[in-house]
Formats: sequence, C-alpha cells, structure tokens
Amino acid sequence: MKILLTIKYDGTSFYGFQIQKKEEERSVQKELQDVLSKFFNQPIKIHGSGRTDRGVHAIGQTAHFEIDRKRIDLKRLKYSLNRMLPSDIYISKVEKVSDSFHARYSAILKEYRYLLSVGHYDPLKRNYQYFVKESLSFDLLNKALSLFIGKHDFKNFCSNKSDDTIREIYRCEANKRGGIITIKVVGNGFRRYMVRMIVGTALAAAQDKISLEKIKIRLADDAKKEVTYFKVPGCGLYLYYVGYGEKND
Amino acid sequence: MKILLTIKYDGTSFYGFQIQKKEEERSVQKELQDVLSKFFNQPIKIHGSGRTDRGVHAIGQTAHFEIDRKRIDLKRLKYSLNRMLPSDIYISKVEKVSDSFHARYSAILKEYRYLLSVGHYDPLKRNYQYFVKESLSFDLLNKALSLFIGKHDFKNFCSNKSDDTIREIYRCEANKRGGIITIKVVGNGFRRYMVRMIVGTALAAAQDKISLEKIKIRLADDAKKEVTYFKVPGCGLYLYYVGYGEKND
Repeated sequence: MKILLTIKYDGTSFYGFQIQKKEEERSVQKELQDVLSKFFNQPIKIHGSGRTDRGVHAIGQTAHFEIDRKRIDLKRLKYSLNRMLPSDIYISKVEKVSDSFHARYSAILKEYRYLLSVGHYDPLKRNYQYFVKESLSFDLLNKALSLFIGKHDFKNFCSNKSDDTIREIYRCEANKRGGIITIKVVGNGFRRYMVRMIVGTALAAAQDKISLEKIKIRLADDAKKEVTYFKVPGCGLYLYYVGYGEKND
Repeated sequence: MKILLTIKYDGTSFYGFQIQKKEEERSVQKELQDVLSKFFNQPIKIHGSGRTDRGVHAIGQTAHFEIDRKRIDLKRLKYSLNRMLPSDIYISKVEKVSDSFHARYSAILKEYRYLLSVGHYDPLKRNYQYFVKESLSFDLLNKALSLFIGKHDFKNFCSNKSDDTIREIYRCEANKRGGIITIKVVGNGFRRYMVRMIVGTALAAAQDKISLEKIKIRLADDAKKEVTYFKVPGCGLYLYYVGYGEKND
C-alpha cells in the first residue's frame, strides 16, 4: 500500500528536507522516517516531491512511502504521527494513493512563494521573510518576474551542479499588501536555487542592479553561462503546493 | 542625559528580559547593555519598564539609561545599535527624556496581548501563539475576561512570590479573526504571571473547567489564597505597549 503525506514545516532549524550524513544535522526526512518506523515497527523510507534547502519552509510539501499492509486507519495514523513528531513539523493530510504514484515523478506542478518585507525590520519575522532595506520599484519587480514565464533554459538561474535545466514557468508575479511583497512562482519543476535566483534577479532589477535586457539575454536559448548571479536567502521561501493529476488509478 | 529606548524582540531564545546569573542564558537586558557599553565606550546599565519571562515577546518594551553627555545624535545612535544588536532584537525608537523620568516608575499603563490559535496547528507559528486544540466558547471567554476589569487584589492571579497585589485593569477582552483569538489586557501594572493567569483562567472558563462564580470568589476582597490555578504558556504573550504621561519636563 502506498501512502502520501502532505507536510508543513518550519525550516528554520533544519538543514533541509533531505536526510544528512551528519547525525547532528536535523532533516525533515529523518524526523518523518523515525516516527513512521516507530509507528509501523519496521524501517520506512519516504520519497519527497523534492528537496528544500536549509532554512526553507513548507506549507504543502509531499512525500510517499510504501508499506505491506492491507488496511490502515489513516485518521489514527495522522493523529499518532503528529503526536510523535517534533513541534516544527505537522502532517496536514494522509491519503492512500495508487501503486504507480510517486511523490516526485507524478508531480505536474509546484508552487513556491517568497516573502519580502519592505516596511520596518521585524525581529519576530526574521526567519520567515527576507527584509529588504533599500527601496525598490514594484513595477520593475513585476516586469522582471514576467520575463521568466514560459519555457526556458534556466542554466543561469540555478545551482552550477544542475543539469537538465529546461523548465516551464506558468506564473511568476508579485503582490503587495502592507509592507509585505508575496511572490508566487508556479512551474512544472525547479532546479536547486532556481526560485531564489529568479526572485534575487527580479529584486536586483527592481533596484536597478541589472537591466531587463540583461535578464532576457541570460534566459535566451543561446545564453552563455554567467559567473555572477543574484540569490535571495532561504528564510523567505515556502514550498507552497505540489500539484498532481489523479492520485488513484 | 536620559535616553528612552522602545524595543521589539522575539522572546523565543531569551531567558527573559532581565539579566541572568548564568553567562550562557541570553537576556535582552544583557544584549542591550553590551552594545550600549560598546557604543559609548563605558559601562551602561539600563532600566526596563518591567521584566518579561522566558519566551515572552515584546512589541513595545521600554528601557532608559543615563549618560554624561551634552549632545547625542539620536538617529545615529539608533542606527548603530540596530547594526550591532542580534537579529532578534530591534530598537524602534530612541528619544531624550527628562531627568525625572523612569521607564518603570513613570509608566501609567501597560498593554499586553495574548494570541490563541483555535484553527489548525501551525508549526511555523508554534513560538508565537498558543495552540488550543479543545473547543471553547468565545462568549464565555469574553464573559470571564470582563470579570477582571476594575481594581482587584490579584493575589490569586500572579506568582506566589508577588506581594503588593492590588492592580487596576482598564481593558480585558478577546477578538476573533480567522483562527486567531487576540486577547488585550490593559492595566496600571502587572505582577509576575498575572496576564498568563488571567488568560489561563478565562480560557478554563471558556472550556467549562472553572465557573464564572468561582472566578469572582477568587477575585473578591476577602478571597483566600488558592493552590490550584490556570496559566497559559509564555510563547503567546506580547508586551505590546507601555504608556507614559509627559516624558519631558
């Protein structure tokens, strides 16, 4: 039987979603596997929809696991796991999925959100939004973000270690409310640092540190690999939603 | 010259406002004194409006200090202190006050706020609001809170170590928005744990764990000292505002 978990976590004190080599470096995957293994009294390995980096939060991360059972009380499973998990992880949904389902390979879209604070510095939000002290043009920010919409080779907008860098972005836009700018980025997949580099580059454009023209060149089919880049910190980033087609046969 | 600071802090990783005996136990007072002493190149002691306990936050804590100077560039002082302070403390205001002013003794009122979460558990807010799983009557909550308004002997609603327990409460009410209940408590002064025990008792009434009649008896002039009490955790508590009359002669 395959079970899919939807998970919310505060990334502040994690080294990321993925299990780390060093025992003392906390990961969301390790915490989840530990409580699942305790619950089922056998080693359980989970498969996430993808990694999140150190300090990055999740509202709707997903992960599946397999277990050789005929029946499982899903309500009791959710309740028990949440009782056992540390307070910075919460499972918001537990559901049965088909045998062919895979949390990563079945995903058809992902939505990330990035929070920029452009008002006064708030020490209570320091791990949950990125404070931007210098002024910026909200209009230029949105113009720059819109350049990323569509199918592009994102080799200049992800970690150097990434290959297979062609992705499609469906939505990429900023909304402002009070002193908070929320940037939504929806696409069919993301490479490492991709959202943080898209947001970082658009923010740089909004602060006249890079031109819209230069961004277009970096996104073009014949783009050369750039050495300099812009990247915002992980604290403002949220994996908001992972979208699937039918989860059951 | 006397200077008054208005301070915002995330109480999560502090043992409280007041300086601790153990070096390794972080306090807001110690962090502030350290940066002030560096800035002025002499030991500076600050006097807060009052203490806050471990894990309790502040939006508008105040503290004053004295310094033998004729002129101080207050704007530069604020800027420099905020650059030197750790990221969980922020000074939102720096102002000159009269020689007779005292952050604690000149205060005429204090406003505290307490946040209860009554929706779904949110791991990202676990240090900033108190999650109440069991259902409660919002109407009973407000009825119970209103009993505290006026001048009372709060000996049954503060730490056992407190004496001089007569205080006046001006406002004590709850507002609900979405899954968050915000409780405002305004009074002329508060003893240790007083807000947390007022809120804890009102919450107990809202969950039928104590009757309104029993609360009245505990608040009465001839009340006996009670052994059992209700107290909510520090994480949901905010010192919101400290009120003064004229700050200058």
